[in-house]
Amino acid sequence: MDNLGIDFLSELVGTAMLVLLGCGVVANVALIRTKGFNGGTLMVNVAWGLAVFAGVIVSYASGAHLNPAVTLGLVANGAKTFGSAATPVDVNFVSVIAYIGAQMIGAIIGAVLVWLAYKQHFDEEPEAANKLGVFSTGPAIRSYGWNLVTEIIGTFVLVFVVIGFGGGRQGEGGLAALGALPVALLVIGIGASLGGPTGYAINPARDLGPRIVHAILPIKGKGSSDWSYSWVPVVGPIIGGVLAGLAAIPLLPLLG
Amino acid sequence: MDNLGIDFLSELVGTAMLVLLGCGVVANVALIRTKGFNGGTLMVNVAWGLAVFAGVIVSYASGAHLNPAVTLGLVANGAKTFGSAATPVDVNFVSVIAYIGAQMIGAIIGAVLVWLAYKQHFDEEPEAANKLGVFSTGPAIRSYGWNLVTEIIGTFVLVFVVIGFGGGRQGEGGLAALGALPVALLVIGIGASLGGPTGYAINPARDLGPRIVHAILPIKGKGSSDWSYSWVPVVGPIIGGVLAGLAAIPLLPLLG
Amino acid sequence: MDNLGIDFLSELVGTAMLVLLGCGVVANVALIRTKGFNGGTLMVNVAWGLAVFAGVIVSYASGAHLNPAVTLGLVANGAKTFGSAATPVDVNFVSVIAYIGAQMIGAIIGAVLVWLAYKQHFDEEPEAANKLGVFSTGPAIRSYGWNLVTEIIGTFVLVFVVIGFGGGRQGEGGLAALGALPVALLVIGIGASLGGPTGYAINPARDLGPRIVHAILPIKGKGSSDWSYSWVPVVGPIIGGVLAGLAAIPLLPLLG
Amino acid sequence: MDNLGIDFLSELVGTAMLVLLGCGVVANVALIRTKGFNGGTLMVNVAWGLAVFAGVIVSYASGAHLNPAVTLGLVANGAKTFGSAATPVDVNFVSVIAYIGAQMIGAIIGAVLVWLAYKQHFDEEPEAANKLGVFSTGPAIRSYGWNLVTEIIGTFVLVFVVIGFGGGRQGEGGLAALGALPVALLVIGIGASLGGPTGYAINPARDLGPRIVHAILPIKGKGSSDWSYSWVPVVGPIIGGVLAGLAAIPLLPLLG
Repeated sequence: MDNLGIDFLSELVGTAMLVLLGCGVVANVALIRTKGFNGGTLMVNVAWGLAVFAGVIVSYASGAHLNPAVTLGLVANGAKTFGSAATPVDVNFVSVIAYIGAQMIGAIIGAVLVWLAYKQHFDEEPEAANKLGVFSTGPAIRSYGWNLVTEIIGTFVLVFVVIGFGGGRQGEGGLAALGALPVALLVIGIGASLGGPTGYAINPARDLGPRIVHAILPIKGKGSSDWSYSWVPVVGPIIGGVLAGLAAIPLLPLLG
Repeated sequence: MDNLGIDFLSELVGTAMLVLLGCGVVANVALIRTKGFNGGTLMVNVAWGLAVFAGVIVSYASGAHLNPAVTLGLVANGAKTFGSAATPVDVNFVSVIAYIGAQMIGAIIGAVLVWLAYKQHFDEEPEAANKLGVFSTGPAIRSYGWNLVTEIIGTFVLVFVVIGFGGGRQGEGGLAALGALPVALLVIGIGASLGGPTGYAINPARDLGPRIVHAILPIKGKGSSDWSYSWVPVVGPIIGGVLAGLAAIPLLPLLG
Repeated sequence: MDNLGIDFLSELVGTAMLVLLGCGVVANVALIRTKGFNGGTLMVNVAWGLAVFAGVIVSYASGAHLNPAVTLGLVANGAKTFGSAATPVDVNFVSVIAYIGAQMIGAIIGAVLVWLAYKQHFDEEPEAANKLGVFSTGPAIRSYGWNLVTEIIGTFVLVFVVIGFGGGRQGEGGLAALGALPVALLVIGIGASLGGPTGYAINPARDLGPRIVHAILPIKGKGSSDWSYSWVPVVGPIIGGVLAGLAAIPLLPLLG
Repeated sequence: MDNLGIDFLSELVGTAMLVLLGCGVVANVALIRTKGFNGGTLMVNVAWGLAVFAGVIVSYASGAHLNPAVTLGLVANGAKTFGSAATPVDVNFVSVIAYIGAQMIGAIIGAVLVWLAYKQHFDEEPEAANKLGVFSTGPAIRSYGWNLVTEIIGTFVLVFVVIGFGGGRQGEGGLAALGALPVALLVIGIGASLGGPTGYAINPARDLGPRIVHAILPIKGKGSSDWSYSWVPVVGPIIGGVLAGLAAIPLLPLLG
């Protein structure tokens, strides 16, 4: 396989892992009769961070963007190549589309696996809103403008700090797996601190991919997929990521 | 002692540590009058992860599988040797049986120690189901097929990601102990995200060993050991682990 | 830009990040209708630690003080230079004022961003005390003398231990981002252990900057900014930091 | 100062830090009107782990035992020297007594600081048992024999695993501060998993030092210091630590 093929597969597998574990914890906390029912916000935040951790581990080849906002933020930051030293690809229209496409397909696969893992709990859950909540984010108080602001700020933090430490999995040798920890900690922090108003999508693929799955799958009593909100967790993160990529250019001397 | 003897003892001690701390937190959260009573799902998830952490630390020699699904997943992945550089053993029928046997014996010892540490709380606990829950997992909604699916997915994630960073304790020198942290974080994440339907056995020894202890020990008012379910947390993890080992072969270039 | 300019910007950006994520989690836990409402003390402690983590990552250039008590503690400890090896500045009146000024401006910017991210929740929140609590700390039992003692002890621990491992972001190469983790863990610990009586300001900029924002911004139904208490989380941390800097001089052989 | 003097001071300062942050979190969770009131068991476990983290950071010189059970376990394990490479001391009657004496004095100082930090909350707290609980452990179900068993098992795990990674703060260079993390994680795990029956003293100094402070200080409405139980968290940890030190001798090849 050529480098772009490997990086494509790497983004796909990593994002599938991210969404499987990420949407999985929402299922555990929100769906009826699970063992983690009502497990609390911190549990959700921690598990989303660890979902990023696992996703980053298994997508070393591509640099573990796992998120179109990261990909586009790096483009805005002026990146010339994506991927690890072993499988670099030039940044151009094709590679950007390949990365984002892989993230979308991965997110879709991850969401299907969550449904399979929690199949009976989806069947028994009486509230349609809880089912959609496993797949996609929604606003605590609906107001597209302010919801957008929140997503922009949250994603700005994600992409700016990730650029601050170089992105993806860091380090070589025996402790390299711990190089996925900084971004995991960052995502736990963003979720706990900025997730209150919109549930911190901060990733268009993480939100849109599972929403498509929700719309297509024969989920018992599933209700609306809330398409009227669906653009916010796509547009907000893209704006936030691009702004972070631009802001990081003059501020790079700060980041060591 | 020869290498296989050392590795046998290493798996035994590591799995005993894993089960002592892992089943211990369930006792703390579930049994009456403990200080951690009703401590919450996140506490259980975190402590199971740290149980893996401690177990991995003390079974460096054998590579710290601590789980037949890991051992068989590595076989499926094509491993030629088990164990650390100092005590390697060839992968063959005898060494696989030695690893799995050590894991089972270790799990049994760990479960007996949990019973001793929480002896009075077992005696005072009125609910038989809570007592069994300390030892072995059970389904939130009983349906062997779907329960199997959940265990397969959870164990697939465990073994696939562990192969992604090389397994066991990573790194040399002063910070080597932190090399046990990635697998601990992964287990916290799997528990929080995929533990909802079945309580994430994801390890046949962790479930079957303590269940045997539950059946044998004179635990006051202990009730059934639920043998009808007992095959699910054995067969599911083995399938998931083997599938992960096979899937990792073509995907290895992704994992760096 | 000269070194002092870079370090100034570095402290400003880092402290803005710190306050955005730090005050953000209080908003998430305290304001009405957020997704993290009533998320618990541990969630607040963890997120404040991760706020420090993110802030330290993005202020590598200046050494990531992010706190006048740290800056003054290092002065008391006899520091000759501030900042990273790439952008060192001499410790003198100008550089100390520049650091503290940048921290104050950063804290103000961070607090404004929290207000924007949680705008609707501020608007709907009925309790004025909850709004102030997002910005600034307040005593559980008001008693300026004892509140001061608590802030002195908490900040002493912060600055003494930070001097113990060298402060700021540690380490070079791929895992350097993890060098921000020790101070994050320390702040989680101080919050959980010593935050009970006063809410652990332990940082004059973190408390005074947002309080100014609270006083100035047109926050709906905001009530008093509690200026009568405002000197405690400024004076206490300064005393604690300076004492720690002085105490660390004879005890330095202990700290390795 | 000679090496033994430095190591003495190092153990003293480290144990004071440990007890200040460790007993501090119990005060935060247990005493009336604190901000962390009823913060939950996981918060207590996490903060005790981070108390160890901070204590280990500031007692690098002495090897950061901070616990007579660790000191005596290392003696049983056959240690020839204590302390860091810069300040080694021979293991003999004098150095063992110096270490344990420093730990006791440090624990006493730490406990006094907790009382000062939470002074008003001690004054307002109506329940005497909650006040004692801040200082010292007590059994959930009183039965000296079984309580002893629990403390022996818990301390065995602590000392055995600590020997497994070499004890104290690990690693050199920039990330060395993270070398205090393994023992912190271990203590979080032991607390969550084995703390249910007795509150995991697992350290004679941590329990006896604060109990002495409780007996002596003029704490308003303090009630009994429960001296009849006080020998259990002294004798149990010593037995557990010595057993672990002995068990680790033949098992050392496992520990890498």
